[in-house]
Amino acid sequence: MNSAPRKGPSGVGSSNAHTPLVITRVTPAVLGGRHPAKAVVGDTVTIEATVFRHGHERVRAALLWQPPSGHAGLHERPMTLVNPGLDLWRAELPLDLLGKYEYTIAAWTDHYASWVAELSKRIDAAQPDVATEIDVGLALVERVFAGAHGIAKRDVHALLQRLHDAASDPGNLLRIASSERTLSLMANAASRPDEVRYEPALAIWADPPRARCSAWYELFIRSETLDVARSGTFQQAASRLPDIRRMGFDVVYLAPIHPIGLTNRKGRNNSLRAEPGDPGSPWAIGGKAGGHTAVEPALGTLADFDDFVASARALDMDVALDFAVQCSPDHPWVTEHPEWFHHRPDGTIRYAENPPKKYQDIYPLNFECDDWMGLWEALRDIIRFWMARGVRIFRVDNPHTKPLPFWAWLIETVRAENPDVFFLAEAFTRPPMMEALAQIGFSQSYTYFTWRNTKAELTAYLTELTQPEAALTFRPNFFANTPDILPPILQSGSRAAFKLRLVLAATLSPAYGIYSGFELCEHAAIDGREEYLDSEKYEIKVRDWSAPGNLAGFIARVNQARADNPALHQFTNLHFLDVDNDQLIAYAKWDVSRVNWVIIVVNLDPTAAHEATLRIPLDRLGLADGESFIVSDALNGAQYVWGNRNYVKLDPLNGEPAHILRVTRH
Amino acid sequence: MNSAPRKGPSGVGSSNAHTPLVITRVTPAVLGGRHPAKAVVGDTVTIEATVFRHGHERVRAALLWQPPSGHAGLHERPMTLVNPGLDLWRAELPLDLLGKYEYTIAAWTDHYASWVAELSKRIDAAQPDVATEIDVGLALVERVFAGAHGIAKRDVHALLQRLHDAASDPGNLLRIASSERTLSLMANAASRPDEVRYEPALAIWADPPRARCSAWYELFIRSETLDVARSGTFQQAASRLPDIRRMGFDVVYLAPIHPIGLTNRKGRNNSLRAEPGDPGSPWAIGGKAGGHTAVEPALGTLADFDDFVASARALDMDVALDFAVQCSPDHPWVTEHPEWFHHRPDGTIRYAENPPKKYQDIYPLNFECDDWMGLWEALRDIIRFWMARGVRIFRVDNPHTKPLPFWAWLIETVRAENPDVFFLAEAFTRPPMMEALAQIGFSQSYTYFTWRNTKAELTAYLTELTQPEAALTFRPNFFANTPDILPPILQSGSRAAFKLRLVLAATLSPAYGIYSGFELCEHAAIDGREEYLDSEKYEIKVRDWSAPGNLAGFIARVNQARADNPALHQFTNLHFLDVDNDQLIAYAKWDVSRVNWVIIVVNLDPTAAHEATLRIPLDRLGLADGESFIVSDALNGAQYVWGNRNYVKLDPLNGEPAHILRVTRH
Repeated sequence: MNSAPRKGPSGVGSSNAHTPLVITRVTPAVLGGRHPAKAVVGDTVTIEATVFRHGHERVRAALLWQPPSGHAGLHERPMTLVNPGLDLWRAELPLDLLGKYEYTIAAWTDHYASWVAELSKRIDAAQPDVATEIDVGLALVERVFAGAHGIAKRDVHALLQRLHDAASDPGNLLRIASSERTLSLMANAASRPDEVRYEPALAIWADPPRARCSAWYELFIRSETLDVARSGTFQQAASRLPDIRRMGFDVVYLAPIHPIGLTNRKGRNNSLRAEPGDPGSPWAIGGKAGGHTAVEPALGTLADFDDFVASARALDMDVALDFAVQCSPDHPWVTEHPEWFHHRPDGTIRYAENPPKKYQDIYPLNFECDDWMGLWEALRDIIRFWMARGVRIFRVDNPHTKPLPFWAWLIETVRAENPDVFFLAEAFTRPPMMEALAQIGFSQSYTYFTWRNTKAELTAYLTELTQPEAALTFRPNFFANTPDILPPILQSGSRAAFKLRLVLAATLSPAYGIYSGFELCEHAAIDGREEYLDSEKYEIKVRDWSAPGNLAGFIARVNQARADNPALHQFTNLHFLDVDNDQLIAYAKWDVSRVNWVIIVVNLDPTAAHEATLRIPLDRLGLADGESFIVSDALNGAQYVWGNRNYVKLDPLNGEPAHILRVTRH
Repeated sequence: MNSAPRKGPSGVGSSNAHTPLVITRVTPAVLGGRHPAKAVVGDTVTIEATVFRHGHERVRAALLWQPPSGHAGLHERPMTLVNPGLDLWRAELPLDLLGKYEYTIAAWTDHYASWVAELSKRIDAAQPDVATEIDVGLALVERVFAGAHGIAKRDVHALLQRLHDAASDPGNLLRIASSERTLSLMANAASRPDEVRYEPALAIWADPPRARCSAWYELFIRSETLDVARSGTFQQAASRLPDIRRMGFDVVYLAPIHPIGLTNRKGRNNSLRAEPGDPGSPWAIGGKAGGHTAVEPALGTLADFDDFVASARALDMDVALDFAVQCSPDHPWVTEHPEWFHHRPDGTIRYAENPPKKYQDIYPLNFECDDWMGLWEALRDIIRFWMARGVRIFRVDNPHTKPLPFWAWLIETVRAENPDVFFLAEAFTRPPMMEALAQIGFSQSYTYFTWRNTKAELTAYLTELTQPEAALTFRPNFFANTPDILPPILQSGSRAAFKLRLVLAATLSPAYGIYSGFELCEHAAIDGREEYLDSEKYEIKVRDWSAPGNLAGFIARVNQARADNPALHQFTNLHFLDVDNDQLIAYAKWDVSRVNWVIIVVNLDPTAAHEATLRIPLDRLGLADGESFIVSDALNGAQYVWGNRNYVKLDPLNGEPAHILRVTRH
């Protein structure tokens, strides 16, 4: 005898071996559910699934979800069949809380609704022999009655009475049987013997809003001084926060604030020998005064740091700390935990190298050491230390040189405790690693934006980043410059170049940033490289923030446009427009409600005026062919009447290199 | 104290909790590995994966696979890094056997190769202090030696000697250490403590070649007669096989051959009352002479059937049987297994209905009955019965009205025993169900081709079907007509209409079919419907196969073109060409080796001549701008010299409505 099908194979994506129901193509889902998708608290996420079964029986589907831990309880909400031809069901999931939501889809056969639909067809077709079918339905309701409890049982009993009373009048019986109230009663009272749930359950992270939309300003505390010979302090830096806030920034990101090592300290311009008084690189973390949980004494005390954070909070700004997992030779861990470092055969500790480059002032940590568990915990405790002091954002230095499982564990652990915390990945590496870091938990990522200049480059890169699947996890933070990157386009020092790159960063991505000095158009580079000459990484810089030609006012206008236009708070709502000049790039963004529309035009050539015809797809704006509308420029207040084809001229030498146009309907 | 990370979270898609390696985006994979992808035996399938880790260590990857059961053994083949910028690895998997291959990807860190690469960079950079690095490498080789066995241990020992001897000459040592032979020795000898495998393992089915490419001819055995009052027989049908083979068909698909019920037998034109002598619908299966494992006595005996199959085999043709899971009221199961049917409250068995349509001559089976297991096994035994008689293809009637888990189990069970068997799904229903049937095991599927007529419709539908993900499982079989479908375009009876639809079916899809009578341009329909008038479903048809105007010669030429051009044996290699007349459709196909190129042009309007300019993307053909080439028409032997832009005129009234052009290079 042949083997019996004791356990039938499962349906497509089902948890119930014999279910006839199929649930597939559930969205959003990242790599089939391996990682959570991302949203922010306050979002309402649309969940869709394809749900069907064989034959003609009616199907029902529901969204099941579990809010973030601490808010237990499994919620259920019916899904709606929005496209019967494609068996597509939909429900909305409101994310009212910070943290990880888990969700799945349930589906089952609604035998009662199936019976009603079939009876209705028979009566419509004037079939004379519906008595048997009515008996079939009454038997079905009786079975539901037998299994029902409480009020539902009472209501089903009453229904049964009414149906029996109407059994001789099929039209009337059908009216009773098919009323919304009856269908709903039966749907709730009936058991679901063939219910199936989609597996694996999926997840979506409700991040703090700034994980999606924020304007970052990077600075070195020690440069907040009036005297190049005296380190700036947290106190001095705090007094500059209102100016930064006035420019429109809401995240202040600090280069490392920890004690800097003396051993092999780097001198100015990355020289191997520091002169007396050279402050060293803040990324050479750890000295006599402590390691990652101490502050460099020259900057002040931990209490001063706390005051700085409080000052930022008072201005509704967040402080982002740099998390660089590495130690100077003077870091306390070098003596307390030598087992956490790499050792050469001669017993000495290896400094960081990427041949031929050498970083003699830095020891990397050994994630493959025997006490990896102790190391992981110590690193987590650093994050906990700063969280306890009010820090909610961590910018991670080179995460791609440390193991992904470590980051996945760290971020999951930390965010389970503090879901309002998030991490930015500084990984300039191959796309798969950048994507993987975003998938395992980083809320924002540095990108290649800094090196994308032409219309073709920008269009291709933004098209790639805004792909729906990529954008479920990867949130770009477009930095226009960093202490490590002074891109060629800015090295001319042209104000137009700085302005156009700022407008692109600030309007293409809801998260973007600049490194201080940008607003002063600082542009002196080491010849033939993208490194700043006399880099702030190795010395204290004193700046005159009100120097003539500074861009503070321009930056404030750009950030105000971001604040005023919800369309600029989203990323994937980017639509490139047709403009017949390769030196001009144009794009539109609109918000979910389609109320707020913004059109941005940027002259990518900082050296000359360019003009073109810009075509607006009026139908996307909800306008008929030939209709016109008014646009107002957030950069200079100018207004224009626009239609399908519009003349645009941007002269960066005698005006602004960009338009940020808000659309006003007639 | 906080909880320790006893078990770190897994990496992205990894089976090893602490591995630093990531394996992702493995292709081919269907819904993340829920179902096997499809290929045919003899194919070499390209397997790709994205594989990477943090830091600068070198990675290796291998394809692991298990051939179909009965051919045990886990095979391993190194993968090649084909795109370092995207961490993309590739290997080829040759499918030499019929059946299900399982495969996965393994990845691990190659510490030795990493050391060689780093040493090489140091020596290139003329670093003076490489002695320590050489010690690091020697220690590494010593560790491998300690863990090695057999010949490898001896070879590693010899290597160690040579490296020690060269230790004072870094350049020479590097030459020894970095030779292909050394790298290969070390890769094989080293253990892989951090090896990770992609989960879940994936699968690919090596189907028989006709599962992908076959020309089907559908007939009713009973009509293979010269006398409408006497049923045709297997013997008579066998004598017609050479003609069908000469037309170029390789699958003969038979309408059901089983005894037909008498109770409620349908009369001509689907009338409710059969007249004496009316043969009934072959889909009303089962009578006094037996059920699904018997043959209708009027057609002959089982021995005659065996002879028919043998005749087909001798012509290298396959016989496809219809598998219709339903019973006439006279089927033996009705008395032997009443529990397998649906019962009304009054105890009677329900006939099939889809209100308002009724099928009084058919009882559906109840897959939700208590003895579903017995029913599943009985249905499987039907398939086993016919397999034992040499049948290798089953065309399943309306699979979408039976549970998917049943089909998944049936097909998996049957094909595990007989991997040369395959199933065609006749499911004209919503796309998700059609897709699911293909995913769970049907090798071919009926499609909407029959109703796609215009250039826009055909282009959109073929674009949808040839999407890489869809095509991994869904293989269309384009039927130009069926006993149920006489599409409007054929109802005119125009020979051009029949020809153009045949060319489209036969060249757009490697699997296609016609229902007999097509070659005679049979076109009488019930008014306003797609049903044949005097349908063969309810009566015996006698035909004059050599009637004037028959398309046998034309069909033979089309099928010969299919046989001659490997490009027509594939499905996704379809490229629509630009032709500036909406009544003309043009497309090119080329084979994997890019040796065989075919260009098809079809006039979609059977009533008038149309002309246009057809553009050929010469670069795709490997030709330079301005070069020309020769094309030969398989339908009439005409030759043309073509280039980038070509004048095309197709006059269906004074010539053929299509070109099937084979490209000959200069």
